[in-house]
Amino acid sequence: MSVSPFASAAGRVGSLDGTAALEAAARHDRLTKPRGSLGRLEDLGVHLAAIAGQVPPPLPVPAAIAVFASDHGVLAQGVTPWPKEVTMQMVANFLAGGAAISVLARQVGASVLVVDVGVDAELAPAAGLRHAKVRRGTADLAVGPAMTVADASAALDVGAVIAAELIGAGARCLVTGDMGIGNTTPSAALIAACAGREPAEVTGRGTGADDDMLARKVAVVRRALARAAAAGIDASMPLALLAEVGGLEIAALAGFVVGGAAARVPVVVDGVIALAATCVAELLVPGSRSFCIAGHRSSEPGATAALDHLGLVPLLDLGLRLGEGSGACLALPLLEGAARLLAEMTTFGEAGVTDKDL
Amino acid sequence: MSVSPFASAAGRVGSLDGTAALEAAARHDRLTKPRGSLGRLEDLGVHLAAIAGQVPPPLPVPAAIAVFASDHGVLAQGVTPWPKEVTMQMVANFLAGGAAISVLARQVGASVLVVDVGVDAELAPAAGLRHAKVRRGTADLAVGPAMTVADASAALDVGAVIAAELIGAGARCLVTGDMGIGNTTPSAALIAACAGREPAEVTGRGTGADDDMLARKVAVVRRALARAAAAGIDASMPLALLAEVGGLEIAALAGFVVGGAAARVPVVVDGVIALAATCVAELLVPGSRSFCIAGHRSSEPGATAALDHLGLVPLLDLGLRLGEGSGACLALPLLEGAARLLAEMTTFGEAGVTDKDL
Repeated sequence: MSVSPFASAAGRVGSLDGTAALEAAARHDRLTKPRGSLGRLEDLGVHLAAIAGQVPPPLPVPAAIAVFASDHGVLAQGVTPWPKEVTMQMVANFLAGGAAISVLARQVGASVLVVDVGVDAELAPAAGLRHAKVRRGTADLAVGPAMTVADASAALDVGAVIAAELIGAGARCLVTGDMGIGNTTPSAALIAACAGREPAEVTGRGTGADDDMLARKVAVVRRALARAAAAGIDASMPLALLAEVGGLEIAALAGFVVGGAAARVPVVVDGVIALAATCVAELLVPGSRSFCIAGHRSSEPGATAALDHLGLVPLLDLGLRLGEGSGACLALPLLEGAARLLAEMTTFGEAGVTDKDL
Repeated sequence: MSVSPFASAAGRVGSLDGTAALEAAARHDRLTKPRGSLGRLEDLGVHLAAIAGQVPPPLPVPAAIAVFASDHGVLAQGVTPWPKEVTMQMVANFLAGGAAISVLARQVGASVLVVDVGVDAELAPAAGLRHAKVRRGTADLAVGPAMTVADASAALDVGAVIAAELIGAGARCLVTGDMGIGNTTPSAALIAACAGREPAEVTGRGTGADDDMLARKVAVVRRALARAAAAGIDASMPLALLAEVGGLEIAALAGFVVGGAAARVPVVVDGVIALAATCVAELLVPGSRSFCIAGHRSSEPGATAALDHLGLVPLLDLGLRLGEGSGACLALPLLEGAARLLAEMTTFGEAGVTDKDL
C-alpha cells in the first residue's frame, strides 16, 4: 500500500534542533552589540537556526509563496458581501501581477504560485498557475459536511506536494497564501473547535461583513460545529473536522505547513486562514507549528485566538485583513535580517571592540 | 548676514500635502482589495504621498542612513557599563561593515555614512566617514551645560548639511542613526523636558545599566533639568535646552530631521536618541515631525513617551534597544511596500474584478 504525500511528509516532521538554538544564542552574545539589544530579531535568528539545524541559519531566500485558491458552498448563507466569481477573478489578477501579493512578492524577489485546489470554474492553463483541483468548491457547511474525508485528504496531499516541489526548486522559505471568497467562515469554525473558543469570539467581519452578515456568520459557525459535535466530530478527530467544517485551500495549507516542517524549511504563516490551517496541521502532526513563523497579527479576531492557541507571536501588527499571503510576505525581510545578522556581524574579538563584561 | 544651513532648511519646512493625501486614499479605494484591508500600509502610503505631494508617492529608495557619532561627558557619572572608547571602536566597526546597521543596510541597499560630529578622538580619514567634529564630546551635563549654544547650532547645521547632501546625491528616504556611549542620558533629559514627564518615567537602562546605574542616571537627569530650570531654560527655549542637557549627535539628528522635512523627503526615525532629536526639531521648527515616520518602538521607556508626545505610531515593535538606526532600517521594506502598492496594484476596473459596492 502506497503512502500518501501528506503521510510521508508527516512521518518526516522532527523536532527543533536545540543544540543549534543554543549555539546561535551563544553566537549572538559574542556579536558587537549589547547582549539582547536586537530583541526579537535575536529570537528569530535562534528560531531559524533551530529549524534548519545550522548556525548561522541558511538565508531564507528565495522565498516561495503558494496561494491556494478555492470556493466555498457556505456563500449560500450570505456570509460575505463579495460574489463567488471574485475568487476566479482574483486568480487572474494574481497571474497578471496586479494584486497586493503580486506587488509585495516582486519587491522581495519571492515567487508566487497560484494553486487551484478547488475553484468553482475551469481555469485556463497559465504560467504561475497549478491545476490541482480536488473538486469545484466545498458544499455548504451550514447544512452538511463541507467535503468528504477523501477530499480533505486529497487537498492535504496537494499542499504537501507543492511544498516539496517548491523546496526542490530551491525555495528556502515557504509563505502561505490563500484566496477564496467566504473562507473566513470555515476558518472561524476550525479555530473555534481547535482552540476551544466560542464562535462569537473568533468570527470576524472578514473582508467586509456588516452587522447582519456577521450575526449570520456566527450563527452558521455555531450550527456547523453543533452538527459536527452531534456526529461525534471534534478536535480529537482533526481530519474529520477539517472535512466537516473546513475548506479545500485550508486543507491544502495544512499540508503545505507539514511539507515545510518535514523539510526543515521555515513556513511563514499569514492571517486567519493560514492560522486555521496551522491549528489543524498541529493536531494532525504535533510539532508542525514549531517550524512556523507568524508573519503578522491580522485584525480578524480568530487570528489572535489561533496565535494564542499555537503559542506563536507575530512579527508585524499592522491591522491587515487581506489574506493572499500579504502580511507574511511583508515579514520576509525581517527573517532575512535575522539570518544575516547571525552570519555577517562581527564578534567583539574580531572587531576589537571592548566588551563591557571584559 | 548669511543664513545658517539649519535656518535655511527650517525656512523651507512646509505642510503635508492634504490634496495628495486625499487622492492617495481615493486611489487605495479603487485598488483590487477590500477597502482598508491593507491596514496601516494604506495609511503609510497616504502619508508618503502627503510628504512628497505626489500620487503615487516616489519609491523611498535608495535610502541613506546617517550615523551621527559623538561622545558624552556625562560618562563621568557612571551612567553606562561601556567605556567611552567603544564609540570610536564602533565607528571603525561601521566602516568595516561588521556592525548590525552595516548588515541591515546592505540587505536593503541603503548607504551608511558615519558622521563624526563629536567623537572624543581624532579619527583617520576613511571611505564612508565624514569629519564634521564640532568639539571632542560634550561636557558633563550633570554639573554644567553639555555645550554652548554655538556648539549646538553648529551641530544642527551639520545635520542639515548632511541631509541636503544625501538627498542631492539621490537619496529618497533618510534614516537616522546614532552612536555615542552614554547618549540615552541626554535623550532622557530632553524627552522629559519636551514631553513634560518625570525623569524616572523616561530614563531606562540603555545598553545595559544595572539597578544602581539606573538610579544614578535618573538622579543625573533630574539634577540636569533642575539646573536648567534654575537658569530659566525649558522647552520654550529648545536651542538653549539642547545645549544645556543634550548631545552633539542629538543636535545633528535634529538638524537632519529638519533637513529631510525641508526637502519633503521622509525621515525614518529610529529609537530613543532619534526621538529625543525629533522632539527638539519639532520645537525648533513646528511641523517637522509630520515628515517623520517612526520605524519602531524601542524598549527604552523614553521612546514610548516621545512617540506619544509626537503622535507617532511606530511600524515595528520588536523589543530592539540597539540604536545605530537598526530599527528604522528594518522598517524600510514596509515604506517601499506601501509606495509600491499604490503604484503597482491594479484597480477593480483595470483587472475586471467585481467590486462589492457595484
